[in-house]
Amino acid sequence: MAEDKNKNRTTVEIYGQRYVIAGTEPSSHIHLVADKVDLKMREIQSHNRFLDSKQLAVLTAVNTMSEYIKIKEELKKLQQRIGKEES
Amino acid sequence: MAEDKNKNRTTVEIYGQRYVIAGTEPSSHIHLVADKVDLKMREIQSHNRFLDSKQLAVLTAVNTMSEYIKIKEELKKLQQRIGKEES
Repeated sequence: MAEDKNKNRTTVEIYGQRYVIAGTEPSSHIHLVADKVDLKMREIQSHNRFLDSKQLAVLTAVNTMSEYIKIKEELKKLQQRIGKEES
Repeated sequence: MAEDKNKNRTTVEIYGQRYVIAGTEPSSHIHLVADKVDLKMREIQSHNRFLDSKQLAVLTAVNTMSEYIKIKEELKKLQQRIGKEES
């Protein structure tokens, strides 16, 4: 973890609640991320109106993690392909 | 969205609550995803013991979305590099 003195603190609003996000990324990145999480929670809610906000947040995390794992695998394969071509 | 009849339904447990995840991915992928979300929620909780489970889930989604956006950008740059080399 980075030292606290090197961290930015960015306040965002997600699904009606404010969060202070500490990190080394620029505020513009944190705002982009927060907007996408908020949008995805609202998208999942529109298809599942009976879910509470905790369930929506968990399903948003699940959805995003699934995409992350798939794209990470895609990147790994591409890096391996380039490695083979360059060796 | 895929038709419901083509979807798998996988039951997972995340942070002590059960979720039924519908999707076209294999159950093994959904279990891997759920385990990673559960682990990340517990990791964030260990550093922020005052957060409730909804806040933990939102911050897990934020954390994962941030990594997703960064890796997607990395993949895009690599694809552009390959495109230039091959053209």
